[in-house]
Order: sequence, then structure tokens, then C-alpha cells
Amino acid sequence: MDQNFAGFQLMRFESECSEVILGVDGGTTSTVCVCMPLFPFSDHLPDPLPVLGRAAAGCSNYNSVGEVAARDTLATVMEEAISKSGVKKSAVRAVCLGVSGVNHPKDEERVFNWMRDIFPAHVKIYVHNDAVAALASGTMGKLLGCVLIAGTGSISFGFTEDGREARAAGAGPVLGDWGSGYGIAAWGLTAVVRAHDGRGPQTMLTSRILDSLGLSSPDELIGWTYADPSWARIAALVPVVVSCAEAGDQVANEILNNAVQELASSVKAVVQRLSLAGEDGKGSFPVVMVGGVLQPNRSWDIGSEVINSVLKTYAGACPIRPKVEPAIGAALVAWNFLLKEIPANGHG
Amino acid sequence: MDQNFAGFQLMRFESECSEVILGVDGGTTSTVCVCMPLFPFSDHLPDPLPVLGRAAAGCSNYNSVGEVAARDTLATVMEEAISKSGVKKSAVRAVCLGVSGVNHPKDEERVFNWMRDIFPAHVKIYVHNDAVAALASGTMGKLLGCVLIAGTGSISFGFTEDGREARAAGAGPVLGDWGSGYGIAAWGLTAVVRAHDGRGPQTMLTSRILDSLGLSSPDELIGWTYADPSWARIAALVPVVVSCAEAGDQVANEILNNAVQELASSVKAVVQRLSLAGEDGKGSFPVVMVGGVLQPNRSWDIGSEVINSVLKTYAGACPIRPKVEPAIGAALVAWNFLLKEIPANGHG
Repeated sequence: MDQNFAGFQLMRFESECSEVILGVDGGTTSTVCVCMPLFPFSDHLPDPLPVLGRAAAGCSNYNSVGEVAARDTLATVMEEAISKSGVKKSAVRAVCLGVSGVNHPKDEERVFNWMRDIFPAHVKIYVHNDAVAALASGTMGKLLGCVLIAGTGSISFGFTEDGREARAAGAGPVLGDWGSGYGIAAWGLTAVVRAHDGRGPQTMLTSRILDSLGLSSPDELIGWTYADPSWARIAALVPVVVSCAEAGDQVANEILNNAVQELASSVKAVVQRLSLAGEDGKGSFPVVMVGGVLQPNRSWDIGSEVINSVLKTYAGACPIRPKVEPAIGAALVAWNFLLKEIPANGHG
Repeated sequence: MDQNFAGFQLMRFESECSEVILGVDGGTTSTVCVCMPLFPFSDHLPDPLPVLGRAAAGCSNYNSVGEVAARDTLATVMEEAISKSGVKKSAVRAVCLGVSGVNHPKDEERVFNWMRDIFPAHVKIYVHNDAVAALASGTMGKLLGCVLIAGTGSISFGFTEDGREARAAGAGPVLGDWGSGYGIAAWGLTAVVRAHDGRGPQTMLTSRILDSLGLSSPDELIGWTYADPSWARIAALVPVVVSCAEAGDQVANEILNNAVQELASSVKAVVQRLSLAGEDGKGSFPVVMVGGVLQPNRSWDIGSEVINSVLKTYAGACPIRPKVEPAIGAALVAWNFLLKEIPANGHG
């Protein structure tokens, strides 16, 4: 282990406590678990945060892979993270899981019961949607504010200090998630078809998209599109649409501007429903931005444009681009919950 | 056989000729074949048209069911229509097939070769997309003008007298067929989700759609939508959207108005590319309207609104709602082609 600050802190933690917390980010593409020591203090977080062990596996959304596979994936990834940390399972004090597909209390109960079979009753178990882990990765574990996730899909999720929550979008491509990567790419493909059959203006998207797919004519796009129903395969075209917009293509710019309005609309809907900006609409609140569509290293910065649009309505919106991964956010949620339950400087 | 005019005509045909033509409308939902006598005249068509036999079967789109099943379906439905007509296979003089999924010359060649295995070389075989059968059902066999089909999917197809053709839309739901039944219904479902999460205005669509699906909350719409990928299942909600629009719901009216603009745009694109309205844009041309979305017996008449929109650009557009089914249109196409090849009053 490196003799940097984190390493130093970590050794100190190890000497002071033998207990750990697990944070799990369970997504439709991958699942990550981190094992962190139980911090003996509450006011400040070390930077970088100490991570004893980390493990990754595949999908744990049971809507996608079924209950048995999802449960096995979660159990395996936690076991591996514990093992890599050099601690025993009995050292686990709390687990927070943010799992894709968990939308209702009955979903939470299902995952909770899986965990009860693995960990004894004194281990605290917290089950949430994976948007919670994403939010917490930006707020360092506090469940307050709004998170906007825009990758293949898009969703806006908000939390208040008194435990209320609300979501907007996240209904998939058929039900109008037009700010998602899938939505942006589908509009790009549609623009090519429309330019080809005379319904829409000519656009640079035609040559750029055909080149990137290795196709020779827009006629071939129909076959390509329906050959494989995977949403991620369509969404992979987002960088092509962004590059056309950056090169000045009018059609691509309209597509991105529409996506910005869609994403901003989903944030504003959540903020309004939860009164996150206070009764006068001027209060400050965090907006955590996560996902490939919102990545900041582009000259056409979708995330910044979304924030600009939100700021016109809510001047107190504070954008946050997380520096840690969602699994760490989940671990910090567990840590925050635990802090409220244990005496100062004690371990329960 | 009834002793009506058609029956009388038919008996006269039977005494004059023993040869028949087959018209096939091969769709993704069903396939229909009609067997008609070879008319001994060219100027006027009898009304009603004489049909010796008719048979129906399932899907013959080989993109959907595979080549073997598609070929078998076509062979079976033709054999049954011939059998019901009381004639022998050797009486078949010409066959015209309008088959869904036939989009390129290689597709035409594939179906043509299937027919060559069934019928001897002197039988004329004409293979087209099923839009051709739909157009011909409105133009009584003439391949001239534009056909707009709006059912589960939507497509606009046009033909000129010198054999040029063009199509617009028909690219499926991912690629922006927003005027289709699927598109209208998907917008309706999306409007419910948006009203529920605060992104959109409240709408009558919420209660009407939930009632029609037997669901209790908009949250359940996501699960319902992705439980079954069938496009027709979504499109079946069109009458609910139309009824809300007829009852004055603003959101439903916007959806239908957008669909009208999409459908009109696809017709205008074809008319422009083929110069169907002549160089001055004032010439007359038929627009054949087919499919459940365009059915006329509603107070909110999507088809009429489409025509009104087309007329603003092309004053010579002549709407036609076919009185015969597409399979008869296909038979009339065969008859028209044949007339150009045989001497007057002769049978070749």
C-alpha cells in the first residue's frame, strides 16, 4: 500500500477499528462493490477516501437477468470485495446497495431479504435504486438534492432531508426519454432517414453515421437498426452526433438542444415537486451530473447547457460532477445512516 | 353464385375465357389471394369486380417469419384461391404479388424465383412491395400516384407513368415513423408519463389509457410497455388517443396534429421527388389512403386533415379511399401489365 495520506489514514483506521462498510452500485451493465473502513470521525472525510477492497461483476438488475442471477452477482461481488480487503465477513457493519430496477418498496424488500440470508441481523442493510448511489457519489453520502443520470437511458432523481423522493423520466425509449444517449442517437439516425427520403434537410450526420457503421447507403440503416434491439448499441452513436454539432451541423445542433431541454425539464420537474429550492424557489441545492451524455470534456458540453437551463428557473442549482464512483457513494450512504445510530466516537 | 350483375358478368366471362389472374397482398399480419377471370375488354371495369375465389393466410413477410414459411404461405394461399375458383392451375395466366418486405431488386428476384418453381415460364409474374397493391386498389390497377399507408406502421409510396418510384417514412418506430399508429400511441403513453412526473400538462389520456389497459397507476405503464415488444400492441391504443382528442383534450389534439404533419410530410416528399404534380406543382394526381389510422368514420378524421395539409402545397391532390381490397389491386396490376402485352380482344 502506498505511503500517501490515504495509506497513512488507512493504517490508523485499521489499528482503531476492525469493522467495515460495503457500498454496492448495481447497474444493468456492471456491478461494483467497495469495502471501506468504518471511519472513527464524523466531521470531515479523508481525501482520497480509503478503500480497502473493490470488486466488479456483471448485471444485477433482476428485470434484465432474473432474480437468481442478480442475487448471485451481488453475493459474489460483495464476497470478493471483502476477501480483497483482508477482513472477515463478520467485520461488515453495514451495507448500502443502490440497485438498478429497485423502484418500489416490494423491490427493496426483495433485495433486503437476499442480504438477510447473507448477513446476520445486527448488520445494517440499506437498499435503494442505483440513482441513490450516483447522487451520494456527488454529495459524499448525503441524500439531499437532485441527481441527473444520462447514459444509454436518462433519469432525474431527487431527495429531501425529511426523506421524500421523486423521479422524472427514466421510462425508457418508447416512453420519451429523449435526452438519453439512446434518444439522441435515435434522433440522429432518424435525421439521416429524413434527409434521404426528402422529408428533412441534408445533414453531415448522413456521412458521419454511415462511415461509423460501415454502411454505404441510408437504405441500409433500417436493417442495421432492427437487427439488434440493444439500446446501448444505438446509444453508442452519441459521440458522432456531438462531433457533427461541434462541426456546426444545424440538424445535429437541434438534436442536442432538444436533448438539453428534455434533461433540464426532468431536473426541474423533480426540483419543483420536492420544493428543493425552497418555497421562494431561490434556495441552493446540489445537482449531481452522471453518465456519458453529460461528460464535460467536449466543446459541445451537454451537461453545462442543462445546468444553464435549470439556472434560469432555479438560480440556486449547484452542479456537481462526482470525483468518486457510485459504489463509494453507496458506502458513504451506509456510513451516514450508521452515524445517526451510533454514539460519537463509539462503534455501537 | 348470386344472380346479381357480378354473377351475370362472371358467367359471361366463364363462357368466353378459361384463363385467370391471381392477385396477392402479402402483409406482415395476413396474406390474401384473389383469383379473377381474365377480362375480355379493356376500357371499363365491371362493378362489382368479379372474384372467382379468395383465400387468406398469415404473415408472408420473410423478414418476420423466414423464407421457408413465407414461401409456403404464398404457395398455400394461391393454391387455395385457385381451388376455390373451380379452375386448374394451368388456367393461371398472370400473377401479381405485393409483398411486405420486398424493397430491393434482389428481394423481387427471390420471390420471383419462388413463383417460377410453381408456375411455368409462360405465366407472367410481377413482384412488388405491398404498397403497390394498396395503391392499385385505389387506382384500379394503374401504377400512378401516391399511396399513404398508416396502420401500425406508416409509409408513403409513389409511382410515375414512366416507372420511377419513391418512398418516404416506413422506417419503423425507432427511425421516426411518428405518424404511424405505433407513433401516435407511443406519444399518448409518453404524455401520461410526463403528466405523472411533472414534465407535462395533465391530460385525459391518463385515465382513458389506464382504464383501457386495466392498470391503476402511470407507474405501471413502464412495465406494461416493455413486457412485450410487439408494435401492434402499442398501436392498438390509437382509438383511445382519438377519442380523447374528440373530447377536446389539448394534449391528444397536439399528438394527432403532429401525426397529420408527419404523414403529410411523407406524401409531399414523394410527390416532390417524382414531380407527380408536374413541373408547376399544379397537376392532379391520386393519393390513395389506406390503413386504420386513416379510417374515415371518426369526427377527428386524420386522413382528411392529411389531405388538407397536402392540398395547401399541391392543389391537384385527389384523395381516394379504396373500395376494394389490396389483393384485388394486385390482380388489376397483373391485368394492366398483361393488357399491354396481348392483342385487343385476344388472349395471347
